[in-house]
Amino acid sequence: MNASNSIGIVSAKNAQFDTPLVFRSGAVLPRYELVYETYGKLNAAKSNAILICHALSGHHHVAGYYADQPENIGWWDNMVGPGKPVNTDKFFVIGLNNLGGCHGSTGPSSIDPSTGQPYGASFPVITVEDWVESQARLADLLGIRQFAAVIGGSLGGMQALQWSLAFPERVRNVFAIAAAPRLTAQNIAFNDVARSAILTDPDFHGGNFYRHNVVPTRGLRLARMLGHITYLSDDAMADKFGRELRHGQFNYGYEIEFEIESYLRHQGDKFASYFDANTYLLMTKALDYFDPAHDFDGDLNRAFARATANFLVISFTTDWRFSPQRSREIVQPLLHNRLNVSYAEITSAHGHDSFLLEHPHYFDVVRAYLDNVADEPST
Amino acid sequence: MNASNSIGIVSAKNAQFDTPLVFRSGAVLPRYELVYETYGKLNAAKSNAILICHALSGHHHVAGYYADQPENIGWWDNMVGPGKPVNTDKFFVIGLNNLGGCHGSTGPSSIDPSTGQPYGASFPVITVEDWVESQARLADLLGIRQFAAVIGGSLGGMQALQWSLAFPERVRNVFAIAAAPRLTAQNIAFNDVARSAILTDPDFHGGNFYRHNVVPTRGLRLARMLGHITYLSDDAMADKFGRELRHGQFNYGYEIEFEIESYLRHQGDKFASYFDANTYLLMTKALDYFDPAHDFDGDLNRAFARATANFLVISFTTDWRFSPQRSREIVQPLLHNRLNVSYAEITSAHGHDSFLLEHPHYFDVVRAYLDNVADEPST
Repeated sequence: MNASNSIGIVSAKNAQFDTPLVFRSGAVLPRYELVYETYGKLNAAKSNAILICHALSGHHHVAGYYADQPENIGWWDNMVGPGKPVNTDKFFVIGLNNLGGCHGSTGPSSIDPSTGQPYGASFPVITVEDWVESQARLADLLGIRQFAAVIGGSLGGMQALQWSLAFPERVRNVFAIAAAPRLTAQNIAFNDVARSAILTDPDFHGGNFYRHNVVPTRGLRLARMLGHITYLSDDAMADKFGRELRHGQFNYGYEIEFEIESYLRHQGDKFASYFDANTYLLMTKALDYFDPAHDFDGDLNRAFARATANFLVISFTTDWRFSPQRSREIVQPLLHNRLNVSYAEITSAHGHDSFLLEHPHYFDVVRAYLDNVADEPST
Repeated sequence: MNASNSIGIVSAKNAQFDTPLVFRSGAVLPRYELVYETYGKLNAAKSNAILICHALSGHHHVAGYYADQPENIGWWDNMVGPGKPVNTDKFFVIGLNNLGGCHGSTGPSSIDPSTGQPYGASFPVITVEDWVESQARLADLLGIRQFAAVIGGSLGGMQALQWSLAFPERVRNVFAIAAAPRLTAQNIAFNDVARSAILTDPDFHGGNFYRHNVVPTRGLRLARMLGHITYLSDDAMADKFGRELRHGQFNYGYEIEFEIESYLRHQGDKFASYFDANTYLLMTKALDYFDPAHDFDGDLNRAFARATANFLVISFTTDWRFSPQRSREIVQPLLHNRLNVSYAEITSAHGHDSFLLEHPHYFDVVRAYLDNVADEPST
């Protein structure tokens, strides 16, 4: 990363919402808070805004760093900043923590004002549709009628797609990166194993572990270990770890033997130390539920008939969580509806994680596309 | 399955071994028992024997059924029987439960005669090399100097390969089906998640759960659920389950919603009700450790220099646990050493599980190969 073109010091903001939000499930959240950050300047016409939607474990801190935590650099700082592919000299970029998250927005670990206790199990199961509704309210608050672009990778890409369906008039360009139009049985299966690990952890206490002063560490750890396998490509794992041994020899026991075990367990432990188990459950359910064709007999062509945005769809050759084939399943209904769609399949060794990594071809595609995006509203 | 050509009623036998077995780890098992079954007749020259090696959750009951349990049909009954690809009219076929197993052979759940308690955590970590050594002793007991063939799928294929290396003079043909010469980092990673689920289950008690009258059901269940995902192809899961809902609608909760969840949890529950957690751990470690090139600086060409058998290597197009590429990694060093090797890549939709399923092309390959295998010893 070139520190010289970082957006620099940033700070998080809070937005309060007192209009009840009705979820797809029928549940109602009377009031909530969203934490967000912004980079660059909103122009007078308020037409140069870009929304960044995060994936499973992401948050609002997309770019820059905090004055008191210079090492805490945003998760997409390589992509977003002055002169970067998502150029903050031109665009006003917003990152937020999704509702239900655990990084500051109202979520299961927040205090429910009606009880004085964390929401825990009572926090509603949330969908991509609910998130987009809450994001639109944040846009309203900021006076943004229409986004120049909504951009997301993985689960974030699903939110970007949903923007094109829920608010076609409010988004000019949609980027779905390393995404899929909906999960397959295999995708759901992986999520179900991760959820089962959390749900059956004795420390989960039906989601109300906060009041027991414990955390379902074992379950979260397993969920994250499993997740990590699906984020990396087989080849990248082979290159990075292969069959390398931690101690140079077999020890014939259940301690760490292979470097890959050390890596996975470390990732699992780290994640379990800060991420909220209920948020993890909500995120995976949102992934499972998302299906734009759910109300159209499974027909994505009909589902995307109401979209009007231009689209950039990007996939990565070694991504087996959401393979290029899954991105083509997004492209197809867009073409069917004669929408303006660009598709790039990037040759990358790094699997699903590629969407977070700097890669010249990938970054050039995003840069070139956004260079051609007007910061003027469409009519 | 055509019941008319089943081998019919079979029964398990026990073999006692009182010569201590020294494991690769250095551990010693003073005495042990192997449970096995045989099908067909051993000829006078004792030259028509075929050994079937089982995979992670397999056992000795390969073909036929028990008089008192007519529904308990052997796990490879479609493959092994009179007139079947592994033809018991011609060959004398042996199935055994591997040492460390939980189906009758001495394993962690067996009583350690020196303590009167189950071995539990004190049962040695076992390797493919140790298994092959124990299988050779069973062959000695039965008077078999040389196998016409040693056949195995998946982990069983690794045992077959090891036979060609440990006892080149004792095996004329080796079948490695849906196998790999050694695990990749990704393979090890999946095993490590499964093991971690068991090891961190509070009911595991460091492997000595027997004395607490509990079973680490949660961990075993998760391990099996995860395993199942890797046994099925993405496509087969999509065809069989897709996004089908269990109750026809989203229920926005953590009960079963999708059919795939119902299937996985059922498989997990069933497995956890009968399989021994310590055996599961041992099996996955044996998979991790196996690497014929471990003592040859990772060079499989040098590792297979001592092999003399003929080889049949079979892979399945949609198997992503051990993909065709992994089978070609077996073929390559065999060709390098100018061994006689046949390789078939079978077009099948059923992923890794294909090796257990009836498939005309697959079965024809096995049948044709074995029709040309002499039931005479080689000199």
